[in-house]
Formats: sequence, C-alpha cells, structure tokens
Amino acid sequence: MTRKLILDLDTGIDDSLAIAYTLASPEAELIGVTATYGNVLMRDSVRNSLAVLDLLGAPGIPVHPGLPCASSAGDFSVQEISAFIHGRNGIGEVDIADSRRGAETTGAVDVIIEASRRYGDELVYVPTGPLTNLAAALKKDPSLAERLTVVLMGGALTVSGNTSPWAEANISQDPDAADAVFRSGVDATMVGLDVTLQTLLTYEHTHRWREAGTPAGAFLADMTDYYIRAYETTAPGLGGCGLHDPLAAAVAVDPSLVSTFPVNLRVDVEGPTRGRTIGDVERLNEPRKTSRVALGVDVDRFLETFMDRVTRLVRAD
Amino acid sequence: MTRKLILDLDTGIDDSLAIAYTLASPEAELIGVTATYGNVLMRDSVRNSLAVLDLLGAPGIPVHPGLPCASSAGDFSVQEISAFIHGRNGIGEVDIADSRRGAETTGAVDVIIEASRRYGDELVYVPTGPLTNLAAALKKDPSLAERLTVVLMGGALTVSGNTSPWAEANISQDPDAADAVFRSGVDATMVGLDVTLQTLLTYEHTHRWREAGTPAGAFLADMTDYYIRAYETTAPGLGGCGLHDPLAAAVAVDPSLVSTFPVNLRVDVEGPTRGRTIGDVERLNEPRKTSRVALGVDVDRFLETFMDRVTRLVRAD
Repeated sequence: MTRKLILDLDTGIDDSLAIAYTLASPEAELIGVTATYGNVLMRDSVRNSLAVLDLLGAPGIPVHPGLPCASSAGDFSVQEISAFIHGRNGIGEVDIADSRRGAETTGAVDVIIEASRRYGDELVYVPTGPLTNLAAALKKDPSLAERLTVVLMGGALTVSGNTSPWAEANISQDPDAADAVFRSGVDATMVGLDVTLQTLLTYEHTHRWREAGTPAGAFLADMTDYYIRAYETTAPGLGGCGLHDPLAAAVAVDPSLVSTFPVNLRVDVEGPTRGRTIGDVERLNEPRKTSRVALGVDVDRFLETFMDRVTRLVRAD
Repeated sequence: MTRKLILDLDTGIDDSLAIAYTLASPEAELIGVTATYGNVLMRDSVRNSLAVLDLLGAPGIPVHPGLPCASSAGDFSVQEISAFIHGRNGIGEVDIADSRRGAETTGAVDVIIEASRRYGDELVYVPTGPLTNLAAALKKDPSLAERLTVVLMGGALTVSGNTSPWAEANISQDPDAADAVFRSGVDATMVGLDVTLQTLLTYEHTHRWREAGTPAGAFLADMTDYYIRAYETTAPGLGGCGLHDPLAAAVAVDPSLVSTFPVNLRVDVEGPTRGRTIGDVERLNEPRKTSRVALGVDVDRFLETFMDRVTRLVRAD
C-alpha cells in the first residue's frame, strides 16, 4: 500500500533530508508539507521547503503555513544553538534559489483535518518539529484523534534530552502541545533520541552525493557537511550527525525499521522537568496504549535504504 | 537448574514478601540474606529478616549485616514516608517474636564476593534497597563485575519516580552507588516501577493467607494489609499495593516473567535530577549492553505463581 504523507517541518537540515527521503521512496506519496517553527522561523520553514522541493524536482507539492509559535508563548525567536546547528538560513548557509511560487492559502490546521477526513488510514502525518499545529488541529476537531496516524520525531524516553538532561528540542518548544497530543488518544509513534542518535551520517556518506555531480547532490552534501561539523562541536564523541527527521519519515513509510514499546505517554508541563516525555503512571495499567516509542532500530538497513534512495534521487537530478 | 539467591534487603513489608516467595520457590535456594538500610535502619533490617525467616520455617538461613548508610552520607535515618508505608517497625506494626539467633559476623560485602567466587553462574544477587553494599563489593573486588548476576528492584526508566518525578526510592537513597554499579559492567537486570506498579496485590489476595489459619498466614495478611492501606493514601487510583521486591525475586528465579530492554544505564548524580535512572547517551552505540530493564511483565502468571506459592507456604506452617 502506498502511504500518503504530510510532513510538518521546521526546515532545517534534517528536515530537508526527510523531504529527500520521502520523495525518493516508492511506497510514499508526499501530498503536502505543513510549516512549523523551531530550527527556523515558520516563514523561513515555508521558504526552505518550497526551495528544496523545487531543487529536488517536486515543484508541485503544496506547502502550507502553520502556527508561528507555541500557544503558551507570545512569539518565537530562533535559539542560538539552533542557528549554530542548522545555520542562520536553516540549510547550512548554503544558497539555493527561492521558489517562484508561494505557500498555499489553506493553513496547516485545516490541511491536517481535511486530509485525514479524505484519506483515513492511508494518511500518515509526520511532525518533525514542535507539535503546535497538531495540537491545534486536535482542539479544533477532537474526532481527529480517532482517525489520524502520527509518526513524530521528538522526545527522549530512555536517554537524556538534548536541550536539557530531560528535554528534547522539539518537545521543549511546546510541552503543552505535546502533552495534549499524547493525552488525546491519537495513534502516535514516537521516534526520539532513543533511536535517532543511533542512525549517524558521516562525510563518507555525503561524499557520494557530491560525486553525483548534480546541483541537488552538491546541495545535500554541502548542507549536511555543515550539520556534521556542528555535531563535532555539540556531540564530539558521537561520530556523525543524527538522522532525526529522515528516520521518522522512514518509519512512517516502513514501521518495521524500528522495534517499539507501547506506552501511554505524557509530557511534564509543570516543575523543573518541563518538557520531559515520560510514561504516565496514572494510565500505566490501562490495557490500551495509544503511543508507541521506538527503542530499537535496524541501523544498517535504514542507512543503506536512506543512502540508496537519496543518492539515486540526486543522480536523477 | 536451581539458582542460589542472596537477597539484599531493607526489610520492609515487600522485602518480607520477597523472602516468602523465595522460600516457596522450588527452583530457588536462598543461601543468605544481606542487610541494607532504607525502609528501616540496617540493624532493624537484620532483626526483621531473622524474625521473618524463623516464622516462615527457615531458621537456618544466615543473615549478614551490611553498610548502614550511603558513603556520600554520614548517617541515615528513616524517612517519614517510609515509616508511613512500612510502619515504624518495618513490618506494618505487626508484632512477631525476635529470633534467638543474631546476625553472622561476616559482613555483606565479603559475603557477596565470596559467594560469587564459590558459585559463579549459579548465583543471583537480588538487592531490593539502595545499592550501597554491592557498590562497595565492586570497589573492593572489581573482578566481581565479570562474575556476578544481579537482579535488582529499583529505578524507573519509562515512568516517573516515587520520591520525586524522576527518582525511585531505592536509587535515591544512594545515587552514587547505583551509578557505580551500572557503570561497572556487571550483568544487571533492573526491575523498576515500570513493571512493579503493574503487579498489584489486594485485600482479596491477603484474605487467602488469613484463611490458612496459621501464624505465618496471619502475619503476612496483617502486614500486607497495612501496606495496601498506605497505598490507598499514597497512590489512591492504583487499586492495590505494588509487589516491588517479590517481583525482583521472581525474575531472579524465572527471567521469562518479564520482557526486557537492553541498555547501558547511568544514574544522574549531579543537578536537579539526582537519582534518575536513564540510558547513557555516551554508551548508546556500544554494541554490548550491560543492563536490561524490565518493561513488560506477565502480570497474570506472576500473580498466580506468587499467590499459589506463598499460600502453600503459609498453609504448611
């Protein structure tokens, strides 16, 4: 079965790689991109998604604007650490042409609701930034929780966070939204740091894209090298950059890439551990678990599939 | 294969139930009890273990004194919450006779080292309190890490703690010791709140022990009812008391009762989350995982086996 994917992106280097992987996957049909904030401002996420889609030969995929900040916050500005990791422009300071088209007029919240009504089980919604758009959609149409399948990049259950010892970046941007999503009952698979710090890309990998000799290959290689260099500073022992968002897209396409732990999740919204993803003791003994957390990943198979597909895509450019 | 067990107890209501379960298990030979502090003072743990062993018809099992407090602390006093849950005397304010015998002269640290040299793979060491004795034994004889099998009650990986949102009681008593144990490379299975809050005992269960009409049956029923009453205050929605320590003993006897997640654990020893058990990001990609965390438990099979065995034991009294 072909799955219809909507990627909800704060585009972002690994967000761009998630676009590339999805476009290169024969089992996936990318029906739209919705924009959120995080690695960049929401409007820059729109800009980058449009430009990357054009460069990767998919100028027909609609991009929808989303909410610009958490509902608990009045506004949003990009954190220094995000700019360091993704570059000021979000795509590793690499210059690519602006798209001639603009964002759609329909916003992210309505797109999620409409697509879920239209496609039902065929649709997988893949947020790789804060869960602000999804929480707003669930608030506007609570019945969405019964219909939607979500595979999200975010959180950390069995390892420490990356913005604090307990919080992962995407969840920490809007803990209230994430808590609302996990408590809504929506079918959610969490692809967090537990697994994404196991799937690492190195300069040897990006070299293969550069060798393709195409604009798309040069762009992905240059952009990702920026990301790998940032990881050499932020996570010196790791030996590469984490393929966070592409792994979530890959799990949306092929859930068998990960082994998962069924659990009713919550997010700490009060106290010193605000932003922590954790199992909810109060729902521990409920037989139905609405979430699944990826704890194991077939690293070799994912990396091989990722490289084969994305390399073929940039060669065809 | 019969497994030789050493229980390291801060005896305690559920510690007493762990003694009962182990004595009642044909696959287990209880070769000794070592004493720690936590639910009670170390010397009261010795007193209670001796008295409970006598009452349950096992007056020949040696009880060894352990360290009285964490090495980072100068002393130890019982917390109010521990006294509330286990009673001032540790066994639910139930009176049972003191044993006529006393503790052995060999201390816990030397007992662990000697038993591991003597019995190798046959031995399973089961700490159900702070890991102070084990950490001291590993410090005295680092080669112990290569020989010993540990099944511990403590920690919480995928749910919140019970002394704070991040720390479980046993680990929080001596986070440094627990961190040293997990980093030592010793083969450790963590049976924490992730599973022990799923295995609940109720008044209907303890009623079966009282019906046996024996002193042992009356003791276990009265003591455990005290524990269930405390849980009605501390965890009103849970619907029973958690069988923490007995589940660890049961997993030591039969590992197939739980499904486990392999992970290299650490304990936060600095910062606001001191006492938290969490996967160590720095050892995430090491192929060898020295710990296993129980995340799933066959609740029905454990409860049935637990009740069958302990009820038969008290009937034979």
